[in-house]
Amino acid sequence: MKIDLLITNCAVLPVPGRETLITPGFVAIGFSKILLAGPMAECPAAGTGTVLDGQGQLALPGLVNGHCHAPMTLFRGLADDLDLATWLYGHIFPAEARQVNPEMVYWCSKLAAAEMLLSGTTTVADGYFLEDEVARACAETGLRCVAAQAVIDFPAPGAEDPKRNIEVAACFLERWQGRDPLITPAVFAHSPYTCTNTTLRRAKELTRKFQVPFFIHAAETKEEHKQIAEPLAPTPIGHLEALGILDRDTVCAHCVWANERDLDCLAERGASVVTCPQSNAKLASGQAPLTPLLQRGLRVALGTDSAASNNSLDLFREMDFAAKIHKINPCNPVAIPARRLLEIATWGGADALALGAGQGTLTPGAPADLILVDLQQPHLQPFHSPNLLVYSRAAADVRTVIVNGQLVVANRKLLTIDLRETCRQVRKLAGG
Amino acid sequence: MKIDLLITNCAVLPVPGRETLITPGFVAIGFSKILLAGPMAECPAAGTGTVLDGQGQLALPGLVNGHCHAPMTLFRGLADDLDLATWLYGHIFPAEARQVNPEMVYWCSKLAAAEMLLSGTTTVADGYFLEDEVARACAETGLRCVAAQAVIDFPAPGAEDPKRNIEVAACFLERWQGRDPLITPAVFAHSPYTCTNTTLRRAKELTRKFQVPFFIHAAETKEEHKQIAEPLAPTPIGHLEALGILDRDTVCAHCVWANERDLDCLAERGASVVTCPQSNAKLASGQAPLTPLLQRGLRVALGTDSAASNNSLDLFREMDFAAKIHKINPCNPVAIPARRLLEIATWGGADALALGAGQGTLTPGAPADLILVDLQQPHLQPFHSPNLLVYSRAAADVRTVIVNGQLVVANRKLLTIDLRETCRQVRKLAGG
Repeated sequence: MKIDLLITNCAVLPVPGRETLITPGFVAIGFSKILLAGPMAECPAAGTGTVLDGQGQLALPGLVNGHCHAPMTLFRGLADDLDLATWLYGHIFPAEARQVNPEMVYWCSKLAAAEMLLSGTTTVADGYFLEDEVARACAETGLRCVAAQAVIDFPAPGAEDPKRNIEVAACFLERWQGRDPLITPAVFAHSPYTCTNTTLRRAKELTRKFQVPFFIHAAETKEEHKQIAEPLAPTPIGHLEALGILDRDTVCAHCVWANERDLDCLAERGASVVTCPQSNAKLASGQAPLTPLLQRGLRVALGTDSAASNNSLDLFREMDFAAKIHKINPCNPVAIPARRLLEIATWGGADALALGAGQGTLTPGAPADLILVDLQQPHLQPFHSPNLLVYSRAAADVRTVIVNGQLVVANRKLLTIDLRETCRQVRKLAGG
Repeated sequence: MKIDLLITNCAVLPVPGRETLITPGFVAIGFSKILLAGPMAECPAAGTGTVLDGQGQLALPGLVNGHCHAPMTLFRGLADDLDLATWLYGHIFPAEARQVNPEMVYWCSKLAAAEMLLSGTTTVADGYFLEDEVARACAETGLRCVAAQAVIDFPAPGAEDPKRNIEVAACFLERWQGRDPLITPAVFAHSPYTCTNTTLRRAKELTRKFQVPFFIHAAETKEEHKQIAEPLAPTPIGHLEALGILDRDTVCAHCVWANERDLDCLAERGASVVTCPQSNAKLASGQAPLTPLLQRGLRVALGTDSAASNNSLDLFREMDFAAKIHKINPCNPVAIPARRLLEIATWGGADALALGAGQGTLTPGAPADLILVDLQQPHLQPFHSPNLLVYSRAAADVRTVIVNGQLVVANRKLLTIDLRETCRQVRKLAGG
């Protein structure tokens, strides 16, 4: 067992929601993988590996953000407190038409990646135009990314002629497949109301050919089904089913307005769902049926959506919000406990994104994507339970971040990029 | 104009929700008051005063936490994901019976005060037993506190004989009235279901005599009215009205289950309300009718409730949660915009607690309670709007805190107490 990095004397939460805290414990990392995690009494010798003293900290798998549009960080706070249609057609689409270009996508994705890493996210599933620049920015910053090239039947940056959108996506997949250990290329068909049936079918065909995930916004708002040009069923999920698009590699973002039949259909096909409760709340789109989704055994990830509709990319806050809102409506305080959110935000989310086995855990062989949270902060005292990771803010308490075995954040400092320069570039793009 | 402290080159939000950002600006402080705030072009000379360079930071009034039980910080995460009755009778009351004593109240209140200051809260309204120790801890830590001695018709710490509870409260008011500029003593009658009608009347009489606020938990759960021993009306608010308790110095916490008639009654009497959305959600108590409350012009504050039911005392997060959940149910994205929450969490809350004029603003003559937020953090880029204070996490970005003109937090370090020792004491009390 050749150890590259050994973290000692920390508390360890190896499989959030399933296993309890090991304290004091260790995590041994080698060849970009978790070699072993356990109690200090069983800690191996570091050999020539680096030792990191984790005293007073808690090691857990890095968080998995299942739905994001990193470049839209440029629009953070640009248009708040509006409904989805006004927000999208009145503000975001016009701003995108003016401002989206490769430089914008690159710098804003770098900023988003920095924000995510500094708040404990080690994997993001992103979908946007000019996704090459998102992939490049994430790879440089050290964030694992399922980078999905957007397909939409409007003229879009990088695919000014919508007829070429599938071809653009195909080239993207070719460029990125097998190129970087941090990047999994994929396709993001924007939605059933912005893509024709032909485009949706062709996009799914393409992802089947490349064996990569297919992402789509689905059933986000109550009005969505009315906006589908040639609906094949009375609901957006039914429409996707009729198109033959739902399978285990299809990831549906939102599913706020999925009815019982839709949920059964998703479960039967093995499609997964990303819930984005804060974005859905802020845009007043509604609240996804998370309890019924989980009851059906569907694979579910948690997503922040973009910083333009959230307005942060902090998955700790997303867990907290999700755990709390799903208790209000059914008036059921045990509806979705905190530990369930910790599952969803780690290995559950990784499974929903069809990432490799073990991902989102600290079990041997899993990719070494983990974070250390400072347990000495006043708002985490006394630390009666890992529930506090959900119910007390913890994003700013992430001190150390390791992705694919590499130290990316140490003592809250991002080691990979010049953060000040990145912020400066984004402010310049924002006109500030 | 004798300046003690001059903050320069910062952005300034003098009256959150009403006035827009002044940038670059200054804030001049003297004699524990705001002397003036405005654009840098009008900045006076500091004279012999200290100058603090606020470059890259935003000055705004410190936040007002309208409802807290600081000592219960000991129970943070002790019993999560339970309904109010199980949580209270099965876990919290037994833990309190075992653990509440002056030492516990003192140390846990110090920790709570530290957490609040470090997350930008400069005033708290607290209610608990042995409230002297809360007041002492807050005064030492430098947090402004409306300290309300609890009255309950059970044997309680410091009032083992419930017959003496009003006398205990009276002695508390005598001890603290006019004693410390940071402390406003008050009375907190626990609830209509734990206090007899006689106790409620006598407690209100006492606060009228001393001209101090009267706090009470009211209409927190759907079942509450059934638990009132001798109900005088069909709702808890109606009950309080029948007892003659509602007036401008009565502060009702929660009001989740207040019906239209209750709201009209509260408005007519000028009573104020503290809403605690995260605690109400986590305990599945429900969601307060915040929009109707505001529509009636009621004075409303925002509260975290205790760390045992939240589980943090971060009012920034509370604003975010409140702004978002009140958009879901009516499916109305403009229901309560972010700027309205900024009002409620500052001068609106101060008004609801009947604090002095100007409190919660940076207008001349207001007590100098203010915070500086670091705008350089990645999750606040680009800073299109002060809405980001609500919608992107900002608690950990509070760099500087000034209460009553005194520097309490500088560069995120608490200057007033030994935080490490406080945490150690609390962990010891928690048995860890």
